[in-house]
Amino acid sequence: MKEVTIIRRERFSSAHKLWNPKWSEEKNNSTFGGCSNPNWHGHNYELIVKVKGEIDPETGFVMNLKDLSKILKSKVIDKLDHKNLNLDVDFLKDKNTTTEVVAVSIWEEIEEDIEKKGAKLVSVKINETENNSVEYFGEN
Amino acid sequence: MKEVTIIRRERFSSAHKLWNPKWSEEKNNSTFGGCSNPNWHGHNYELIVKVKGEIDPETGFVMNLKDLSKILKSKVIDKLDHKNLNLDVDFLKDKNTTTEVVAVSIWEEIEEDIEKKGAKLVSVKINETENNSVEYFGEN
Amino acid sequence: MKEVTIIRRERFSSAHKLWNPKWSEEKNNSTFGGCSNPNWHGHNYELIVKVKGEIDPETGFVMNLKDLSKILKSKVIDKLDHKNLNLDVDFLKDKNTTTEVVAVSIWEEIEEDIEKKGAKLVSVKINETENNSVEYFGEN
Amino acid sequence: MKEVTIIRRERFSSAHKLWNPKWSEEKNNSTFGGCSNPNWHGHNYELIVKVKGEIDPETGFVMNLKDLSKILKSKVIDKLDHKNLNLDVDFLKDKNTTTEVVAVSIWEEIEEDIEKKGAKLVSVKINETENNSVEYFGEN
Amino acid sequence: MKEVTIIRRERFSSAHKLWNPKWSEEKNNSTFGGCSNPNWHGHNYELIVKVKGEIDPETGFVMNLKDLSKILKSKVIDKLDHKNLNLDVDFLKDKNTTTEVVAVSIWEEIEEDIEKKGAKLVSVKINETENNSVEYFGEN
Amino acid sequence: MKEVTIIRRERFSSAHKLWNPKWSEEKNNSTFGGCSNPNWHGHNYELIVKVKGEIDPETGFVMNLKDLSKILKSKVIDKLDHKNLNLDVDFLKDKNTTTEVVAVSIWEEIEEDIEKKGAKLVSVKINETENNSVEYFGEN
Repeated sequence: MKEVTIIRRERFSSAHKLWNPKWSEEKNNSTFGGCSNPNWHGHNYELIVKVKGEIDPETGFVMNLKDLSKILKSKVIDKLDHKNLNLDVDFLKDKNTTTEVVAVSIWEEIEEDIEKKGAKLVSVKINETENNSVEYFGEN
Repeated sequence: MKEVTIIRRERFSSAHKLWNPKWSEEKNNSTFGGCSNPNWHGHNYELIVKVKGEIDPETGFVMNLKDLSKILKSKVIDKLDHKNLNLDVDFLKDKNTTTEVVAVSIWEEIEEDIEKKGAKLVSVKINETENNSVEYFGEN
Repeated sequence: MKEVTIIRRERFSSAHKLWNPKWSEEKNNSTFGGCSNPNWHGHNYELIVKVKGEIDPETGFVMNLKDLSKILKSKVIDKLDHKNLNLDVDFLKDKNTTTEVVAVSIWEEIEEDIEKKGAKLVSVKINETENNSVEYFGEN
Repeated sequence: MKEVTIIRRERFSSAHKLWNPKWSEEKNNSTFGGCSNPNWHGHNYELIVKVKGEIDPETGFVMNLKDLSKILKSKVIDKLDHKNLNLDVDFLKDKNTTTEVVAVSIWEEIEEDIEKKGAKLVSVKINETENNSVEYFGEN
Repeated sequence: MKEVTIIRRERFSSAHKLWNPKWSEEKNNSTFGGCSNPNWHGHNYELIVKVKGEIDPETGFVMNLKDLSKILKSKVIDKLDHKNLNLDVDFLKDKNTTTEVVAVSIWEEIEEDIEKKGAKLVSVKINETENNSVEYFGEN
Repeated sequence: MKEVTIIRRERFSSAHKLWNPKWSEEKNNSTFGGCSNPNWHGHNYELIVKVKGEIDPETGFVMNLKDLSKILKSKVIDKLDHKNLNLDVDFLKDKNTTTEVVAVSIWEEIEEDIEKKGAKLVSVKINETENNSVEYFGEN
C-alpha cells in the first residue's frame, strides 16, 4: 500500500507558566525554574502535524493541505494564538502547560476531524524554542 | 545490527500547476485554488533523502554522501531544477504534480541506484514551502 | 530625532523566466542559463520591506505592522503569489523579471501607500533562493 | 579608517500585551487586536546587536564578543527572559511594550557599557516573530 | 500507553579530518576528498537528541529538558566543543570521525545516563552541514 | 540614480584557532578561551557579499550573480573550504584569524575583481556561528 505522509506547520504566540497547584511556591520554583514566573512568560510556538493516507487518484492529494490547515486553525490556532495557555484555552483548563501536555492535548482535539477526512493522524510536534521540542505519536 | 541513517538535502526551483485534465476548469479551480493558475507558478523545493545501512569499517561511511548526492543530482535535480514539472520531466509526464506524486515518483527513480550501493532507501521528503511538506517511506 | 525602522516579511510563490525578446534564443540561453527555460521555472520568494518613522506616543508604533502587511498583500502578494511574473502581473508587463527589476517595481507600487501612512519606505529586499538576494533603497 | 561591525544574537522568551491605559478597552482592542489580550500572550524574541570599531592589532577583535554577550546578558536577557515585559522589567515600567519601544529602551540600557569598551553601538534589532521585526539606529 | 518524545538541540564547533591510517595518502584523498586535508577542517555541528517516556503526572514532564541538557553538556558538548574530534576526545580516540561514527559514539556515551532518569534514548542526530546529516536509532 | 544591491551567500567549512604568537600560552588562553585550543576547532562559515550598481537595461542585472559566485569561489571558497585558516590560506598567513580579520582580508581579495565587472563592493559579512557575525563595509 502506497501511504504518504503530509506535513503542515502552523504557528502560535502564547503566554504560559509551569505550575503544580498542589506544590509550594518553593517546590514549583526549584522544579520549573524561570518557567514558574508568576507573571507568566511566553513563546512563539511552532506546531507541526503529520497525517498519513493513500493518494486519491483524482486529486493527487492524501488530503488537501488547505483542509488540514483549516482544522488546525479552528481547533488549535484560533484558541491558542495570542492567548494565555493556562487561562484562556478550554482544552488546557487545569492542566500544567508543559510542551508534552500541550502536544497530547492538541492530538486529542484534532484526531477525530482528521479521521473524518479519511486520513490518519501520525504525530503532533511542538517546537517551544529553537532548542526544545516535543513530539507525540498517539497511544501505543 | 548497528544500522545508521544518512540524510542528504538537495534543492530545485521549478514551475508547475495542479490540474486534472478530466475535470472542467471550474472544478480544477475550486479544488486546487491558486495552484491551478493556467500560466503556472513555482517553488524552491527542498528534497531530503534518507538512506540506511551498516557502517563500513574501512571508511566509517554507510555510503559516501557524495555518491548519494551524485545519484540525486543525475536522477532528480538535473531533470527538475529550472524546469516545468508538468512539461519538462520524463518521469512526471501525464501526472498531476502534487507534492505527494512528486515524492513517490522520485522514490521510484532513485531506489535502484541506492540499492546498488548496498544501502536501503528510507524516505523521500519534499518541502514545497516552509509550511507544506510531504514524506514517502515506500510501499508497506 | 528618534526614528525607528520596522520590518515585515511576506512570501509569494511564482513562475517566471529571464528573457530579452530583442535577443536570439542562443544569446538568451548563454546569458541567463537555466533561467531562460521556455517552459518557465519558479521560486518561493521572500519579500522583506523596511519602513522608517518616529514612534507615535499613543500607540507605541511607527506604523501598525498589520497596515503595512495589508498594503503589501493588496499591492504585491495578491498579484504575484501563485502567478507567472512575466505573464500575469500588470506592473511587470514587458519587463525582464530579474530579481533586481522585481524589487524596483515593487518599490514603485508601494511607496505612495506607505507615505500616506506617515512613514518612509527604506528598502525592498527579495530573497529569490537561500543564496541569491537583491535589495533596493530607492533613487539616490 | 578600517572600522568593522560585530554582531551578536541573544534570545529571550517573554509575556507581554499591548495596552494604552488612557484608552477604553474597546479602543485598545480595535487598535492592537489580539495583542491586547488581557491575560497576555508571548514570544521567543531574538535580539541582534551591532557594534562598530577598529580592530585591535593585538587581539584581532573590535571587542571580544564574549564581553558584548556579557553586557547583553546582564543588562537585558537576565531581566527580560522568562519574564513579563509589562510587569517585571524595571526599564519598561509604564511603557507600552511594542517592539519599537522595547528596541529603543534596550539601546538606552546598553549604550554606555558598550562605549566603555571603546566601541560604538550601531543598532538594536528585535525579531518578534519570523515576519515582524524592528531595528533602531539611535538618535540622528 | 501515552509515551511522548522530547527533543533537545545542542551545538558544538570542532575540527576534524577523515583518515584511515591503514591506507596510503592517495587512497585517503581519493575516498575522502577535501575531508582528508592534513591540516584539518571544521564544522558547526548540531546535535539533536530524542528521548521517550511517559508523562510524570506531577511535573507534566517526560524528563526535565534541563536535565537532558546537562547530560548532553557534560558527556558530549564539554568534550567536543572547540576541540579536535580526532585528537582531543577520549571516546573518539583511534576512530575515523565520520558523522556516522560520531553519532554512534555519542549514543554509547549518553544512553546509560538517560536510562537512569527513567527515559529511553530514541535517536542521536547530527547535522554536519545544512545539507549533510546522520541519525542513529540504536541497535535493532 | 537607481542603484540596486545584489547579495550572494557562499559557505565554507574550516579549522582555525585564535592565537597571538607574541603572547604566552596563558595570555592566549585567558583572552581567547576555547578558541585558542592548540589542536584547532572549526566552523561552518557563511560568507555574504553585497555588491551595488545600476541595472543593465539589456540583462536586467546589476551583475550576473553567477559571475559574482565565480569570483567568490575562485578567490575565497576554493582557498578556505575544508582548509585550516591559519596554515593553508595564502592571504591569511601570519594573521590572527578572528572573524574581523578574515572579513577584511576577503574584502581585499575580491574588491578589484568586482570593480572590473563594473560594480561596487558594499560589504563582506561572515556568520561564524548562528549567534556571532562580523560585517565589513570597507575603509571610510
